[in-house]
Amino acid sequence: MTKSNTSPRLFIDDDLAQGSTVSLDPAHAHYLGHVMRLQTGDGVRLFNGHDGEWLAIIEKMKKAGCLVSINEQLRSQENEAGPWLAFAPVKKTQTGFIVEKATELGASRLCPVITRRTNSARVNVDRFRARAIEASEQCGRLSVPDINAPEALEKFVAAWPSGRRLLLLDETGGGQPIAKALEGLRRPGGGLSSDCGFLSGPEGGFEDGELDALRKLDFVTAVGLGRRVLRAETAVLSALACWQAIIGEAE
Amino acid sequence: MTKSNTSPRLFIDDDLAQGSTVSLDPAHAHYLGHVMRLQTGDGVRLFNGHDGEWLAIIEKMKKAGCLVSINEQLRSQENEAGPWLAFAPVKKTQTGFIVEKATELGASRLCPVITRRTNSARVNVDRFRARAIEASEQCGRLSVPDINAPEALEKFVAAWPSGRRLLLLDETGGGQPIAKALEGLRRPGGGLSSDCGFLSGPEGGFEDGELDALRKLDFVTAVGLGRRVLRAETAVLSALACWQAIIGEAE
Repeated sequence: MTKSNTSPRLFIDDDLAQGSTVSLDPAHAHYLGHVMRLQTGDGVRLFNGHDGEWLAIIEKMKKAGCLVSINEQLRSQENEAGPWLAFAPVKKTQTGFIVEKATELGASRLCPVITRRTNSARVNVDRFRARAIEASEQCGRLSVPDINAPEALEKFVAAWPSGRRLLLLDETGGGQPIAKALEGLRRPGGGLSSDCGFLSGPEGGFEDGELDALRKLDFVTAVGLGRRVLRAETAVLSALACWQAIIGEAE
Repeated sequence: MTKSNTSPRLFIDDDLAQGSTVSLDPAHAHYLGHVMRLQTGDGVRLFNGHDGEWLAIIEKMKKAGCLVSINEQLRSQENEAGPWLAFAPVKKTQTGFIVEKATELGASRLCPVITRRTNSARVNVDRFRARAIEASEQCGRLSVPDINAPEALEKFVAAWPSGRRLLLLDETGGGQPIAKALEGLRRPGGGLSSDCGFLSGPEGGFEDGELDALRKLDFVTAVGLGRRVLRAETAVLSALACWQAIIGEAE
């Protein structure tokens, strides 16, 4: 029986088109067969970031893989414009959390940034990508955020597209309130621009010299998140939640 | 040497007044002496929820406790009005996370609510309180959120003060956008009212009958957090972050 609303939802790399057949890898086969206990004839939802979401039917289930036929398009691909999130990796649990929650809240690109107080050994792009895929499958996105290779802060800002506003999460209290900064992203013709990014520092914050240099860049706006001292992962999540409520809903 | 900005910050139950002496319990003594390596003459910041924040000087440091003299008031007590957060406990890690982040984001009261799909064995009020104290110490609050005993959903709504708006985090998509709902909390004379609450459901959501009953209550407003399916802890944190940005900053 195929239950399209409750069927497992998987991100794959293959193209998806009516009537084609796709071979799922052993990890997906294990998940569908042994964790979800699906059998031949059962349904699974597939998306790949560009062909929308499809209901596929399991044709053959083996240890080495699983063959599915692409049956019916459930959703067409949508433009999932979202903010970019640049962040200094923190402890492993909290960094995984940032990747998961940023995905749920609609970030379109994740950029690990190495600051002077960042332990760069904590960056594992493959693990970030696996976590982002899992969160995308769960939250109903049709795309997975792009994940950049880690870059030093100086290189990162040098490569930043100058037309995209970068909201610096400034824990020193000098920034403008985030709601006001987001409202300020209105396009000249009305509507809000989703082409922005957030930059969040490491535990212990940016060094003073880093903050000074960032504030001088004309694409940077320093923003504040209230009077309390937020942990790095709380600050990131708060900023993205505000983006979603003030800009994402209005798209 | 006393460094008031970087000294450890602890919540205690005792009164705090200039010149008085306070005996800290063995757990605090262990933390200050063995974890932070403080000695006689070093400073520690103390708050109790009603006397502001004080610099205290360590007079005696022993295993059984630590004697401090209350030296100088660093901050006077402020009114930390914040929203109430009612939530169905989810998995242990995520529930701890909700308690921590809600404290950082300014919730003034946490109400564990048992819904039909909630595993009530997951509620440990003492552990919630310890986590909330730790987060309050870290984020610079002058108060710790009150934590209610767990209540069944029906009892909880029956006891809800009818003058306080309850924003229901409604994952079914029928609610109004949260930014709009929060803007709607303006007082007749201008300004926004912080006297509101949020109610968040368990994994798997509220049952349809629960949702129907909640929506019929005249103090309830159903709100949505966007198109994606947010995990329970993400929804809670998003709602509180929006409250902070739209109402908390304006207080």
